[in-house]
Amino acid sequence: MIRRHAHRDNLIWASGAGAAPSPAATVGDARQASPRKPGGWEPAPAAPRTEDTVSRPSVQDTAPLAPSRERRPPHRARRHVPGTVTQPHPLTNRSTNEQLRTYEQGVRAAFDQIVPTLKQISALHCEPDFTQRAQQLAQRELGFELPNGILDDAWIAGLDLRRLYAWSLFETYRRMADDFFARDPLRGRETTAFDEFLQSCGFHLMDITPCADGRLAHAISYVLRLPIGAVRRKSYAGTLFDVEETVEKWVEVEHQRFREGRPNTADTSTRYLKVVMYHFSSLDPEHQGCAAHGSDDGLAARAGLERLHHFRQAIENSFCCGASVALLLIGLDTDTDAIRVHLPDERGEMDLNQSVDAQALYDQTHNLTPEAARQGILEAVCAAAPDTADEGMVRLVARLVENNLSQIEYVRTLQGGGYPDAGHAERFMAVGIGFEEIQLRNLTYFAYLHTVEEGAPDLDVGCRIFDGLNVSHGLPIPVVVRFDYHGRVPGARERAVERARRLDRALADRFRVRVQQGLLHRMLVVRDCDAGSGLEVVSTSVDPQPAGGH
Amino acid sequence: MIRRHAHRDNLIWASGAGAAPSPAATVGDARQASPRKPGGWEPAPAAPRTEDTVSRPSVQDTAPLAPSRERRPPHRARRHVPGTVTQPHPLTNRSTNEQLRTYEQGVRAAFDQIVPTLKQISALHCEPDFTQRAQQLAQRELGFELPNGILDDAWIAGLDLRRLYAWSLFETYRRMADDFFARDPLRGRETTAFDEFLQSCGFHLMDITPCADGRLAHAISYVLRLPIGAVRRKSYAGTLFDVEETVEKWVEVEHQRFREGRPNTADTSTRYLKVVMYHFSSLDPEHQGCAAHGSDDGLAARAGLERLHHFRQAIENSFCCGASVALLLIGLDTDTDAIRVHLPDERGEMDLNQSVDAQALYDQTHNLTPEAARQGILEAVCAAAPDTADEGMVRLVARLVENNLSQIEYVRTLQGGGYPDAGHAERFMAVGIGFEEIQLRNLTYFAYLHTVEEGAPDLDVGCRIFDGLNVSHGLPIPVVVRFDYHGRVPGARERAVERARRLDRALADRFRVRVQQGLLHRMLVVRDCDAGSGLEVVSTSVDPQPAGGH
Repeated sequence: MIRRHAHRDNLIWASGAGAAPSPAATVGDARQASPRKPGGWEPAPAAPRTEDTVSRPSVQDTAPLAPSRERRPPHRARRHVPGTVTQPHPLTNRSTNEQLRTYEQGVRAAFDQIVPTLKQISALHCEPDFTQRAQQLAQRELGFELPNGILDDAWIAGLDLRRLYAWSLFETYRRMADDFFARDPLRGRETTAFDEFLQSCGFHLMDITPCADGRLAHAISYVLRLPIGAVRRKSYAGTLFDVEETVEKWVEVEHQRFREGRPNTADTSTRYLKVVMYHFSSLDPEHQGCAAHGSDDGLAARAGLERLHHFRQAIENSFCCGASVALLLIGLDTDTDAIRVHLPDERGEMDLNQSVDAQALYDQTHNLTPEAARQGILEAVCAAAPDTADEGMVRLVARLVENNLSQIEYVRTLQGGGYPDAGHAERFMAVGIGFEEIQLRNLTYFAYLHTVEEGAPDLDVGCRIFDGLNVSHGLPIPVVVRFDYHGRVPGARERAVERARRLDRALADRFRVRVQQGLLHRMLVVRDCDAGSGLEVVSTSVDPQPAGGH
Repeated sequence: MIRRHAHRDNLIWASGAGAAPSPAATVGDARQASPRKPGGWEPAPAAPRTEDTVSRPSVQDTAPLAPSRERRPPHRARRHVPGTVTQPHPLTNRSTNEQLRTYEQGVRAAFDQIVPTLKQISALHCEPDFTQRAQQLAQRELGFELPNGILDDAWIAGLDLRRLYAWSLFETYRRMADDFFARDPLRGRETTAFDEFLQSCGFHLMDITPCADGRLAHAISYVLRLPIGAVRRKSYAGTLFDVEETVEKWVEVEHQRFREGRPNTADTSTRYLKVVMYHFSSLDPEHQGCAAHGSDDGLAARAGLERLHHFRQAIENSFCCGASVALLLIGLDTDTDAIRVHLPDERGEMDLNQSVDAQALYDQTHNLTPEAARQGILEAVCAAAPDTADEGMVRLVARLVENNLSQIEYVRTLQGGGYPDAGHAERFMAVGIGFEEIQLRNLTYFAYLHTVEEGAPDLDVGCRIFDGLNVSHGLPIPVVVRFDYHGRVPGARERAVERARRLDRALADRFRVRVQQGLLHRMLVVRDCDAGSGLEVVSTSVDPQPAGGH
């Protein structure tokens, strides 16, 4: 069976900064989310299993989607039949695709291994040498040992599988994050080439706001194939980024150019490029689009564009000497990972009905030579651009489209013709500020926030999603509370720790009942982003002395 | 009687950013606050009453303070006997003192007129032409009419004096604020002379953090006699200012110098001057000092100095090219308004045991010519400065000391030898971001915050103070919720309004019982600080449709 037909509605951002769907719709959506059965999880294989996925039937063979397919414009409706992509596109990077897939599957496998392993351990718990055998099993299957205390106490009141589950999940996350910062597996620090290219196009910083929906968490490293160290990613629900915060960032970047000549000197005529990436679903446009905008593509695009204009206007109104910024709006089809790009004219105006479509270009240039394909893309971008479009912007967009072709192929071939999880399949909630290491789709439900008071609507939606995914089966909701800090600033670490603890108390207070039942566990972490180091665990609620709220 | 002997403990900031007094102490302190009796309020006279206050007995004639006086160092213990100041100091500005006093007494009188007027109105409320007579009285005594609805409904369930009180207080505050922004009564916008002087001393911005204690609310306009438009005031509990936020401000100022040459070009060798003003009480040092530091002067000074060093280190660590800042630490005696200044050496190091004392200098230079007095001050500042102190810093400090002499005289003469309110006498709570117009001592309990979650300890202390001042007499706590915004930034007003409403909901939730009993009322206001306009009232809980929480 193709799991994407589970008809789970996407609720990731039923509300957020400025978005206000009706409460009824939000609750209703959350209830519709068909829960995953913990026992039925299929752990992703540690080794490639291309043959399995490629042989899956295409979505076009299934009845339920047929009616909605007919309503879609041609280039959005096309769902690729896996059998036809044996011939790769001339411009796709197959070795990178392999590396990305290995990383993705390895991380997913580590998370998906937890439930089957704990099931086995649970079955053992009446054995006399239980602790020892459980640890051997955990070491073999998960790569780490479990806390002896929980295992040793199993004879008294039974095995506390909720705590074990949360503990294992937190440990898996911690190891993934530390590996990410130690090894740079997605080569996000190899920034020189893209930095130079970006400046040659007339931009000194690319600041991207994808929607905070977990299905866009891989926007930089996978969808656009950019080194994460070379761009700024700042996700917001419904792409409604914080204008004031972005103005502050602009000032910081300009100041650095003036003072340090980084990335170039202030007199170089490059601009700050602000990009918004909204999203839609070609397969189920009315349910799996952006929840913050009621799955209305047009609304999502307009809202992103309006926010971009507000930012530009804020800069132009607040600073002299012709201060301005460049703007760009990108749409992402979360079913295929294909992008469509709305090119701006010289004043940053964009026509929402006019875009260049990477999916269509993939097919149109599939049988050409690399040179001809590249030329075809450039011409298509030019054709989609307003007359007064900036030449550098056209070149940048052509590059983004070309990069995206690899991701289109990645999804078509390596993921079996499409993502198995159109709806929610997150493993944990990420709450606070940071999470640079989360570069995989649908692994994490994000709630970027400073306080529960400001982020309560997002947290509520998250909890309802995990009520369906976990709580309904008796599994707890794992929440990572995180604040990154600048270690160069004295006292910053202590303030980050204090902030994490305060947030944790507010969280435990808001979700009191789940916490009391052991159905919501938290791990508090901080990270010194100046040092480039891994995570520092402050505390966890699965420790003998919990983080708070119990 | 001298009201300062009411022995109210100062609790304004029993905790805050980083300060952590024991909860027991905080609660205990709050309970000790001896409440003011509404009926017993003495409204400040609208016209000067110098003769009344000067004739009051000196504190030195009263027994209770004698023991603690002996423990004080000589120049802190001296409490001036009013009779001796008939001869003003040669460097004080008597006409400014008169203007400042007229403004202060006018504002206080407006607030203090509310309770007596409502008492009179209450006495009328069984009369047949009640509404009309009440409005005449209100117009005559308060300068505005009351809401007809509340008056008209008095025959049903009695006069709702709680709502009337909150309504009148909010209206009085609103009128005071609008007058402040329209008229600039403290001439805070006359900045040119001080700007030029400051730059001649080697500084391009003076950024002052007084403690957020209401007894330092007049630090800029009164204590230091600086135009508020020429300095940045950012108050924090216990002076524990936000290092990250101040680094951002530094970047903004540097960027403006680079881009716009304001206030001077970036290549001018001036520095950003960060000043911390801690406080202490010479009359009751163990109870009326800084509550955030347990009334321990040394601790308050050390904490301020440490935060200053953290800020400098953050700048030096985070930016290249010899980036640094200048630091200055000032102590304020909240009983006399005299300052003591700790001068830094070339590296910004300060000796907490070494300071120049304005109170002592007032007396020492009292009988000299203006020139000789000025010279005496300069020499005293030089003597108190480290060998490597910056010449510009010495000149600046000498100016601050000279300015402060006028305030010392203001307190000695015009207030009857000292402040009548050593403890709490605030009229309302100010919650949120803004409040530039609050330039009077002890008028307002401040809680600068973005969310209740972050500012809860300060709000709790504030509510306990007003429980003593108001609630214990049946009067509600008036809370002004305020967020300033930059009107140049599109959408900023809407976000400020939304933020005020969110904060109001959280506030009404935290103090549910008081709200339900009509004992906590809120007015929500926003202000466009780019436009320099007055307040915009968003809503109030005294309106027929309250702001929330009822």
